[in-house]
Amino acid sequence: MTSYKEMSREELVKESESLKKAYDEYKALGLKLDMSRGKPSPEQLDLSMGMLDSLKSTDSMILENGMDARNYGQLEGIPEARRLFAELMGINEDEVFICGNSSLNMMYDTVARAMVFGFPGGEKPWGQQKKLKFLCPVPGYDRHFGICEVFGIQMINVPMNADGPDMTLVESWVNNDDTVKGIWCVPQYANPDGTTYSDEVVRRFAKLKPAAGDFRIFWDNAYCVHHLTDDHPHLLNLMDECKKEGSEDMVIMFCSTSKISFSGAGVAAIGCSKRNMDHLKAKVAMQTISFDKLNQLRHVRFFKNKAGIEAHMLKHRALLKPRFDAVEEAFHQGLDGTEVARWTEPKGGYFISVDVMDGCAARVVALCKEAGVTLTEAGSSFPYHKDPRDRNIRIAPSYPSIDDLKKAASVFTLCCKLAAAEKLLAE
Amino acid sequence: MTSYKEMSREELVKESESLKKAYDEYKALGLKLDMSRGKPSPEQLDLSMGMLDSLKSTDSMILENGMDARNYGQLEGIPEARRLFAELMGINEDEVFICGNSSLNMMYDTVARAMVFGFPGGEKPWGQQKKLKFLCPVPGYDRHFGICEVFGIQMINVPMNADGPDMTLVESWVNNDDTVKGIWCVPQYANPDGTTYSDEVVRRFAKLKPAAGDFRIFWDNAYCVHHLTDDHPHLLNLMDECKKEGSEDMVIMFCSTSKISFSGAGVAAIGCSKRNMDHLKAKVAMQTISFDKLNQLRHVRFFKNKAGIEAHMLKHRALLKPRFDAVEEAFHQGLDGTEVARWTEPKGGYFISVDVMDGCAARVVALCKEAGVTLTEAGSSFPYHKDPRDRNIRIAPSYPSIDDLKKAASVFTLCCKLAAAEKLLAE
Repeated sequence: MTSYKEMSREELVKESESLKKAYDEYKALGLKLDMSRGKPSPEQLDLSMGMLDSLKSTDSMILENGMDARNYGQLEGIPEARRLFAELMGINEDEVFICGNSSLNMMYDTVARAMVFGFPGGEKPWGQQKKLKFLCPVPGYDRHFGICEVFGIQMINVPMNADGPDMTLVESWVNNDDTVKGIWCVPQYANPDGTTYSDEVVRRFAKLKPAAGDFRIFWDNAYCVHHLTDDHPHLLNLMDECKKEGSEDMVIMFCSTSKISFSGAGVAAIGCSKRNMDHLKAKVAMQTISFDKLNQLRHVRFFKNKAGIEAHMLKHRALLKPRFDAVEEAFHQGLDGTEVARWTEPKGGYFISVDVMDGCAARVVALCKEAGVTLTEAGSSFPYHKDPRDRNIRIAPSYPSIDDLKKAASVFTLCCKLAAAEKLLAE
Repeated sequence: MTSYKEMSREELVKESESLKKAYDEYKALGLKLDMSRGKPSPEQLDLSMGMLDSLKSTDSMILENGMDARNYGQLEGIPEARRLFAELMGINEDEVFICGNSSLNMMYDTVARAMVFGFPGGEKPWGQQKKLKFLCPVPGYDRHFGICEVFGIQMINVPMNADGPDMTLVESWVNNDDTVKGIWCVPQYANPDGTTYSDEVVRRFAKLKPAAGDFRIFWDNAYCVHHLTDDHPHLLNLMDECKKEGSEDMVIMFCSTSKISFSGAGVAAIGCSKRNMDHLKAKVAMQTISFDKLNQLRHVRFFKNKAGIEAHMLKHRALLKPRFDAVEEAFHQGLDGTEVARWTEPKGGYFISVDVMDGCAARVVALCKEAGVTLTEAGSSFPYHKDPRDRNIRIAPSYPSIDDLKKAASVFTLCCKLAAAEKLLAE
């Protein structure tokens, strides 16, 4: 296809008319498709059904340390689960704190606790400090930004490069401004652009010399085993690198099985240094008596170890990869040569990130909605929902069937072109 | 036995020597007994083992509203569980919010959210107000007080009468002081003294006219179906009474199955008015995507309805009642006539509350500890761990075997007498 930018006005008018006709035909179909959230499909959830049988009434509920998993206690999680997550996260067992079903909740709580109690190394609780800033690699995860918004933490955009956040910018903020308290990172298969941070980027993170003693890297490794290919990128372990630098108190790692077992009923974990762990345990002890240890045990009995999880993830991949392929194929078919959009072809994770023509993202989302295709709201992947170039759209291909995805992706490409033509004609 | 207060010095010395001898004999046994926490016994936990089979891999995971219980969503809980808890709590389904495994965590979160966001009716978030007070009926639950301590909320003691908190005092604080933001209540089988609030007390709660628009009654109905007798007291429904007064925004109810199903893996719920519910849902939406719906479904499939829970509680009662009886019998045997201690004989709940001789509680707990019997720390049932008369001790008879309880209770009575004799001799 021809680049829209190179079309004459006449050609554009003609193209626009033919697009509108096709668009109206789609509208007449009364589609109801949703590519908005990173939800596993029912088939993916079926993969973990065996877990429900892995803790039966006839099974022992006694943990390896002799405790009864059904009763109160073991605030930091059962030893069996700490071991499993330690292996998964590449850290020591005593650096793992097992929580409830939601790592997002743990991130929220971590910020909330910092507001009330501060972090070791800080002079006072965040809530008692005048000004608080977080660095936000963009595009990023809307719910991370939502937490900052809730607590009135000012967010600073940091552009994502092909190998991770712009580290020169990160260093200049973190090392010089003591009101910078954190940075949100999804280091592997970043939400939404699928980037895995390079070794160089991870090492530069470990070498940060924060101006604020209570600065923390929020390392949300949500997609650590969520590969879509064999030749997947390898993420350097930040905790290892930090230990070399003596900077391990700077990292709080998050991880969960929400997209490994059940999205609503998984197990989440925090990984951190001994100093942070002691602080965490003391503070969480005021908040709850213990998290759900039966669900922890259920997970351990089902997966056994990291190899068990990796084998399980191959089954997820078999369901996910064709969905990514279907979307990417439809994008190529509908958009190649038009220069109205660029998109990622990630090697893992849950999203395809699309940059449409500048100033067109909100229009594309609105057009799709009118045609029955729900997308994540434009701007969602930026702090305050403000995409400065109004161009980024996050596509979540995991949930719909392949047939539905093909339809939805076709509608999407059509809307990208329609919005672009409208814009070029209005110029 | 003779009242210690009426003994001559000579008699007391003799009594004291004989007590010390008996005490040393107990010490030599090397006991290791624990009556400190309200933990269900393994036999009680066994009662709910069938629940683990109530959600198998072959069962449907589709909720009555068509949603998949395994996936994200349904923040306020599954409709089936909201109905069950509505029946249990005596409120409407849309007044129920189902949470994770811990009602304590929900109480902590409710205070934490009030600090950050405030409550409907308040002028600003609690955290931005100069002075915050909570009324604390005493003796009470240590973990309630811990939450206030964490957030720097000043605690005011309110004495518990035979029918509930001293309401004249409560009214005078709540209706006149706009820095009073809350009161902790365990209205049925109060922790630790087993009191159930009278109809009159509940009605006076409903009729409160708080000076603060963001005042809330924290109604922790932890023992709502935890009866030990047939002729159990009936608690008037506060929400009903508040609706008559138009004061339903003043109540936040809490409830959980921690002492119905599994202490570590139950389901907790919040009950509140529509206005509070809308606020709650909007704020929790920033905190998590959803709680564990599979565990909610597991509970509903196992218990079915309130009648199912009540039938289940009779089995708990059969295990708990003999334990309470054993302790009370040992208390009678060891203490009747001595006037060194008074204790409750509750009709439900998890605790026996003992008032030993003024100034002796810490000493009794220390003596017990030395003889291998762990009790809740003296002062625990008061804000700031300060029992003004140093006399209250909370006994938790649920966990140990009856034989162990008999031994532990005997040691306890001995220590009560020993501490009293020491005190009287020192006067």
